[in-house]
This record gives sequence, C-alpha cells and structure tokens, in this order.
Amino acid sequence: MIDEAPYLQPRAANHVPLTPISFLYRTADLYPDRVAIIDEERRFTWLEVRRRCEALAAGLIRLGVKPGDVVSVLAPNTAEMFEAHFAVAMAGAVLNTINIRLDAETVAYILEHAETRVLMVDRQLTPLAEEALARLDRLRQSAPLAEVALARLNRLKPLVIDLGGPGQAVAGCIRHADLLHSEAAAFAPLLPADEWQTLCLNYTSGTSGRPKGVLYHHRGAYLMALGTVAGWGLSGHPTYLYTVPMFHCNGWGHAWTMTALAATIVCCRQISAQAIVGAIETFGVTHFGGAPVVLGMLVEAAEAEPFTLPHAVRVMTAGAPPPAAILEKVEALGFDVMQVYGLTETYGHVVQSIWDQAWDGVDFTSRAMIKARQGVRFPTTESAEIWDAQSGTRLPQDGSAMGEIVLRGNTIMKGYHKDEAATEAAFAGGAFHTGDVAVQHPDGFLEIKDRIKDIIISGGENISSIEVESVLYRHPAVSAAAVVAKHDAKWGETPCAFVELKPGANATTDELNQFCRQHLPGFKVPKHYIFETLPKTSTGKIEKYKLRERAKAFP
Amino acid sequence: MIDEAPYLQPRAANHVPLTPISFLYRTADLYPDRVAIIDEERRFTWLEVRRRCEALAAGLIRLGVKPGDVVSVLAPNTAEMFEAHFAVAMAGAVLNTINIRLDAETVAYILEHAETRVLMVDRQLTPLAEEALARLDRLRQSAPLAEVALARLNRLKPLVIDLGGPGQAVAGCIRHADLLHSEAAAFAPLLPADEWQTLCLNYTSGTSGRPKGVLYHHRGAYLMALGTVAGWGLSGHPTYLYTVPMFHCNGWGHAWTMTALAATIVCCRQISAQAIVGAIETFGVTHFGGAPVVLGMLVEAAEAEPFTLPHAVRVMTAGAPPPAAILEKVEALGFDVMQVYGLTETYGHVVQSIWDQAWDGVDFTSRAMIKARQGVRFPTTESAEIWDAQSGTRLPQDGSAMGEIVLRGNTIMKGYHKDEAATEAAFAGGAFHTGDVAVQHPDGFLEIKDRIKDIIISGGENISSIEVESVLYRHPAVSAAAVVAKHDAKWGETPCAFVELKPGANATTDELNQFCRQHLPGFKVPKHYIFETLPKTSTGKIEKYKLRERAKAFP
Repeated sequence: MIDEAPYLQPRAANHVPLTPISFLYRTADLYPDRVAIIDEERRFTWLEVRRRCEALAAGLIRLGVKPGDVVSVLAPNTAEMFEAHFAVAMAGAVLNTINIRLDAETVAYILEHAETRVLMVDRQLTPLAEEALARLDRLRQSAPLAEVALARLNRLKPLVIDLGGPGQAVAGCIRHADLLHSEAAAFAPLLPADEWQTLCLNYTSGTSGRPKGVLYHHRGAYLMALGTVAGWGLSGHPTYLYTVPMFHCNGWGHAWTMTALAATIVCCRQISAQAIVGAIETFGVTHFGGAPVVLGMLVEAAEAEPFTLPHAVRVMTAGAPPPAAILEKVEALGFDVMQVYGLTETYGHVVQSIWDQAWDGVDFTSRAMIKARQGVRFPTTESAEIWDAQSGTRLPQDGSAMGEIVLRGNTIMKGYHKDEAATEAAFAGGAFHTGDVAVQHPDGFLEIKDRIKDIIISGGENISSIEVESVLYRHPAVSAAAVVAKHDAKWGETPCAFVELKPGANATTDELNQFCRQHLPGFKVPKHYIFETLPKTSTGKIEKYKLRERAKAFP
Repeated sequence: MIDEAPYLQPRAANHVPLTPISFLYRTADLYPDRVAIIDEERRFTWLEVRRRCEALAAGLIRLGVKPGDVVSVLAPNTAEMFEAHFAVAMAGAVLNTINIRLDAETVAYILEHAETRVLMVDRQLTPLAEEALARLDRLRQSAPLAEVALARLNRLKPLVIDLGGPGQAVAGCIRHADLLHSEAAAFAPLLPADEWQTLCLNYTSGTSGRPKGVLYHHRGAYLMALGTVAGWGLSGHPTYLYTVPMFHCNGWGHAWTMTALAATIVCCRQISAQAIVGAIETFGVTHFGGAPVVLGMLVEAAEAEPFTLPHAVRVMTAGAPPPAAILEKVEALGFDVMQVYGLTETYGHVVQSIWDQAWDGVDFTSRAMIKARQGVRFPTTESAEIWDAQSGTRLPQDGSAMGEIVLRGNTIMKGYHKDEAATEAAFAGGAFHTGDVAVQHPDGFLEIKDRIKDIIISGGENISSIEVESVLYRHPAVSAAAVVAKHDAKWGETPCAFVELKPGANATTDELNQFCRQHLPGFKVPKHYIFETLPKTSTGKIEKYKLRERAKAFP
C-alpha cells in the first residue's frame, strides 16, 4: 500500500502549473533564429517575439495593469494580435479578443461587462473603437450611479494602445511601439500560481440576446495545444497561415499550438483565395484553418482560374457543417481537409473527423460524405455523447436517435463571466451542454442535425430544421430558407418555412409543398410557407428567434 | 478584474484528472479494429486490449487488490506486460515493473520494500521469482517482529499470477488466462480522483547501495505521452517495436504514448539485430528505442551482412552517451536517430537532441557529433540548467563551466517511496538534482561530462572521469578503463586509472602515461595506473565505489 506522505506532495521541482507561456520560452530558447511571424513586410524571429512579448507585458504592468485585469484587443490577425496571446498572460492579465465584425453597441457592452482595463486597437478598427468607447462613456454616464461608483468607473475607463496598421490611431492613445522601445531591462513573466487561473475572456456571438463571456484557464490552453499536435498529427515545424480570426476562440488555440512547435506563422489581414494560394506559393504554407466558406472561395477561385498546389496543404475546417460537394472539390484540388467541431465554450475543436486507413480506396464523393460528419472526440476530450434533452440519459450510437451533444474534458470553459445561472445551466448533469443536436453513428461519429432550440417537435417526432432547409435550398428558385417551429393545436409544433426567392425567380406555396413532399416524409413537410427577406445578424447568421415570433402572427 | 467566483471552480464537466487510462478508452472507441499488439503469433485489436485490461483489472479487484496496493511484474516485453500498464491502474493499484536482470536478493528486497500485494510472473522468470519469494519469506521470518506484525506480513504475502510464456509456472499461482476468462460483466475503471495519485513504483538500479523506489503520478504519465508526441514529432499511427524494456521507466512511457496514437506495438522477448531488422521488414516497424548498445548491434550486423531498410525508421536512443562513430554508421544505414536523456526519476526522456534544419547540409561525421550531445529540454520539461554543486547557483551556457544538471517539470517523480531524506536531497533548492555533470553550450545544448560522484576535483579543476576514460579506451591494448578520484595531499584529488587489458595485449604504466599526455592536458593525466579486472554489477555497470575504496590502498 503506497502511503501518500506529506513529503510526496507537489513542489516547485515536480509540479509546474500548465500554461502556454512555457511554450514561448522553450521555443525561443531552442529556436531563437527561426522565423516566428511573417506579417506583410515584417519578419520576427522567435527570440524577437519573446522579447517583444516581454516588453509589452512590462509595459502593461507599468501602465497599471494588475493580475486579473482584462486587456481587450480589436485587431485583425497581425503580429501584435498574435503576441497579445502571450504578453497579456505574461503580465498576469486576461486577454479579451473582440470580434471586429460586431457593431459598436455590442463592443461597448463587452467593454463594460469585461471591465476592460486596456483596449489595444489596430488602426483598421479605429472608427469602431472610437464609437464603442463613446457609447461606453454614455452608458456609464447615464447609469443611475452613486458618485463613488462613477468615480470608480471613470478610473477604470480603458486605456487605449495603438497597435499601428492602416489609418488613424484612436485620439489620445498610447503607442504600442513606444511601449516596446521604452523597455530594456530583464523581465520575468508573471506565471500562474494555479493552472486554473483565467487566461482569456471570449464573448460568444449568440444569435439572440447579449453575448456571454466565456472564461478559459491556462491548463485548458496548454492541453488544447498538445492535444491538437496529437489530434491533427502535427510534426516538425509547420508554416501556418493564420486565416482563422484570432478573435474566434483565440484562433482555435493555434497561437499556442504553433508556438509549441516553433512553427512559422503567416499573418493575414484580408482572407481571399488569392491570398491563401499566394501564401502557399510564396511562404510554403503547409497548414491553415477556415470555415467552409473559405473552402468555397478556393473552389470558386480554381473554377475561375485553375491552380496547382506546389506541396501538400492540410486544412482544418469548422464553424459549420461543410457541404460534401465543397469538400469533394477542395480535396480534388489537393487540400487535405479535416473537419472539426467545437464552440467558444470548448476552446474551439473538441471533436474531429478522423480518417480511417480502411477508407483510403473510396472515391472523392464517398470521402467527402464521410468527412462531412463532425466526428469523434479529440485526444483531450474525455467524452462526447448525445443525451436526451428531457431526461438527460445517454442515447444509443444507432445513427438515428437524436440528442444533444454533451462533452466532458479539460478544454471546456471555467464558466460564463458574471453569469452563474447560465453556467449552471450549461453544466447541468455533470457535462457541458453544447446546444447542438446530433445523431451518433455506430462507429461513434457524431453528425449534427440542428441547434437544440431550432429543432421542431411535431407529434412527438424530432424534425431537424436544417434537413428541411436543405431540401428547400435545392429548389432552383430559393435563395435562402429558414424553417422554425410554429405552435399547432394538434401536433404541438409544425414546421413553418420562411423563404427568400432569387431575384426574378418565382415559386408558389403549392410548388414548394410539392417539392418538399418529393424529398421528405410527410410530417417533415412545412405546413406554412412565408415569402420574405430573412432577418440576419451583422455576421450573416439568420435570426431564427425573430422568425419564431413572426410565425405566431400567421393563422 | 476577473472575479474567481465559487461557481467557476473546477467540476466534473471541465476538469478531468489527467491519466493515461483516458488514452486507452479513446483509442479503443475510435480504432476498435486496428491491431494494437503483435506478440509473436498473437494479435490483439485495440478493443480486445481494452477488454483484456478490464478483465484483468476486475480480476485483480476480485483477488483483493485495493486502491494504492502494489502489483509487481517480472516479465519481458509481452502483451501481458503492456496491458499491465493500464489494467493495474484501472484497478486503482500501483504498477511496479521489476528489472528481470536483477539478482533474487534484490528482487526480494523490492518485494519487501514495495509491500507487493500481487506478483505477476512470465514463466521465463519463474526461477528468479521463486528464489526471490523464498528469500522474501526468510527475510520476513528472520526479522525480529512482534507476532501481530508477522501476521500482517503473512497476510500480505504476494499472490502470484502466471502470465504464461515458455517454461513452468510458479507453484501454486493463479493463471492470468483464468482471470481473464472468468470476467464477463461490464467494468468501470477506478479512475484517479486526483491526477497526483501514484501510478507506478519504479526501482532505480543504482550502482551502489539499495535501489530506491521512484513514485510516478498519473499526471506525469499523461503529459509524458503528449510531450513525446510533440517532442519526437510522432503523427499518424506508428508501428512501434518495443525493444526498450518496460521495466526501465515503463519503457520510457511509450506504452502510454503509443496508445494515445493508436499505434501498433510489436513485442520483443529477445533483442537482436536480426529481430529488429526482421520486424521492420515483416511488420513495417517505423519506430523503436534502445540504448546505444542496440545501435552497435545493428552496425555490427550490417557489417557482417549488409541490409537495406524498406522505409524510414526512427530511433530514440538513451541510457548512455552514444559514441559518435556508432551514430554515424547507424544513420548511414538509414536510421534517423534522436538521442534523449533522462533518468528513472524523470519518467525517462526529458532532454532531447533536436535537429536544426540549418545543419541539414553537414556530413555524417559532423551530424553524429552534433547528435552525440544530450540536447535541450523536452516540450514538457520546464527547465534544464546546470548548477554549481557547492553554491547551487546557475552556471553560464559557455560550453566549459561544468555543473550538475537540474530539472523542473511535470514529468519529475513525486519522490522516493519511504525515503524522505533522499527525496529532500534530490529536490534541494527547488529543482531535481540528476547527479549528472554537464556543460551547457551557448545554443543551450547540454553535454554530459560525468556522474557527479565520479568527477575528480584536482587543484580546483573539475576533471571528467569519462573524458580520461575515453582516451584510455582509444589505446589499442585497453579493453576497459575506469578513472576515479584518489586523495592527494597537494592537489586534493588526482585521477587514478584502473585498466583491464585485452587478452594477450600488453601495456606498461609508462606507455599509458605517454599516451594520455598526448591527448590530455597535464592535470587530467592519471597519476596512478592499476592493471586488474574491473568489478561490474549484474547489469554490466562498473562499480566505481569499489574502485574508490581500492584506490586508497595504493601509495
């Protein structure tokens, strides 16, 4: 019987809190002269990146940033954005990368909710930042605050750091370049005393209501990086094109992963097929990531002007289920695509569409269909199951039972910032509830069918709104379609279709009804068809919650 | 300022204690039909391995094994040995793999010190096990114990499980095969509630005194596996030939690493060049590990009968600094060798001789010289420095200052079992003391010069005994040489050489002295030469502590 004596407890020599900061120091020590970042005309080696991060961290501390303070960033994928992923943590602070496509009101809400201490802004985002800061000011002025509280908030007015870039800087800001130059002395990073310490605060871009602030810890980011190396089969030193915005789950955690591998990171302000193909040819890019829309861009570009890849390029795709047709075409171009699935709450990818050597012989179409499934759990994901939404019991892997994807693992958020109720709801029953509805196939592969709130329950049967929409999309006159639940006295709910027609195209309710009957079982066929322009968010997502309200208005 | 509210503390959904058991379950789920183990004529898929491990774990529990109990194994690298790395942990117990080359007295000492509850024995080791058990019995009978304590020890007499293999089983043992067959019901592994829980107990094979019991935790084994994937650049599904004995640091942790990758493990009872080359050809082995002596065997075999590798094979070598000449020849055969450095206390490799692309053009000789250095820290090693043995201060990376290698990281032992004093000594000053003396080059590479207790300090100068020995080894008449410190009134210590001559060869003190003067600075030249057979341990290591005693006898 092993006795766990007090002298066998963890100590500094044998227990180091896991943190991605360790990757930067090791890589800068081992590969000081390797090119770390290519950002347009600029090149930085790993030693330079380490020194720049140290200088920025020291600068933030000099500005008064304290451990646990939030440093927000509004920037595209630049060297400065990449370095913020280490420098902010090295100052003991919390990084908050903000989606640059948000409106000023939402950005102001985030700055207020996060109590942002410092806001770093790329000049490309100066107008958004200035408007958001003005709104934040008004928000705080208008709030019914006691004088003391007002004083406190004024003190907390974010300091703005100008990260450079095209355009004018925010008025009255501190220059990043000055911060870096003024620092010369040795700097020791404020490493976390506890690996559970908060590393990042990432706001969701929900399609309804206020965004929620997702908290990441150092442990999760570290394990996410090593898990991605194992799960994506990364070896050597990739040349990674940073097409995934670093404001989405910290660019899927690849800033940390690629640092662990002493990769070369190619920055990218504007994503286009030309930019991607150009970077592959010019810099020898071996890996990148992107939503299926990026794959679509590549396919379109190749159809307009065929190109040949000079070497194998591996692509991680996520954000939405990629259409099999796109997967097939992009793989035919020579890209090796792996679909992954995850959410802001899971540090990005936690499920991956692995490839079994037994499938090597299949044709492109079958290959694309296999790859269109979301997949199985990542090395660092402990469990990925489907549960019955009502009872919370696990559902079988039979490819037909539909349930909510629930996850357990070390790359799941700590919880939502200042939102205990939402946190408890997300973790009900001891697992994280993704809100996505899927079937699980006998081989364990998950295949997403819908968002849980979009599923339609008609006469006790689950109907995937996505399935019905995909039929409508196949009708030649349909430009966009959204199917939502409508209350029904007999069936509980029935599908209600909102349809946007292509310019100049025509289709009647009867025609669409006929078309759906040909491709769907009766209970899945919409009972109502409403022809109108669909409401969308600034990021292009259809606002179904508005449509559900609209559906009530129809008899 | 982020508030670390109570609802943000770790919970089951977002904090899973790190354990290598997770790798087995994921791999069995994702790749149930992939071949996991090839052991002579036997093949097991990953699903079969999982089921066999579950059955063994359930069997151990049925036999009365409790969490924290020690299960010892005496076996070569068989399927059963591999599976013990999971099954014992799944029963909540502690795995103790015993060096099968030890003498029965030492094995008895280990069984006594570890309080082994169950001893699993491959029939190849039946004579050793029976003798050790008899000695254990006598040891306990002869000890001056109160009756109660005796009763307790008798109760704890190890149960023996017969693992099969060639030869007779230990009399009165339980058959492994019966244990497996009697289990059918579902089994849930006893996962650690705390990742710091003890996973393994590995005894050092010190060259002097009793072996010390090194304790590993689940966290370290998990991180060791993911760190090895990143550090060795493993991707896909390797076919791994298990030449490294699993009783050495659990076979360098590769049982866990290869499981994480759903590799195919080829077992190996007897290591020979023929066996290795045969396994590469027959099973498509892509990776293996071995001490430099294994590389030497391959070189010799190729010189006797040239062979060509059918594909690239990567080799991890450790255990002793590999001679550059051997490295050069084995790489010329097509093996890609990476030297690593580590100790039982560090779960195996924690330092690796990385390859910089800038060196790609160098010739084989330069390549071998670079690769002969021990290297830089592994991804999961937080720091690897050299410290002055007296003052405990860090020494510069100048390639000449010699100091003790000290390490920090998450793959360092918990401490020594039942030995608080040795544990505190090993962790003095907040880092683990390896007992190895090295220089650190400006590029950070460590190059080992000696064991700390073997270093000779003459007139304030450090003399590496290894350096002097390597000169003596180059003399054509010398078969073996060992250089130790001898007290000297003037210099403090001077080098004293013990030399074993080749059969029929002759060399005088004067000749050797002349030879050393040609190749060494004056202060490093031995002051005494003693011609005699060198004392060696059962594992072939020269017992320098005996020679230091002998040296005192000479005037």
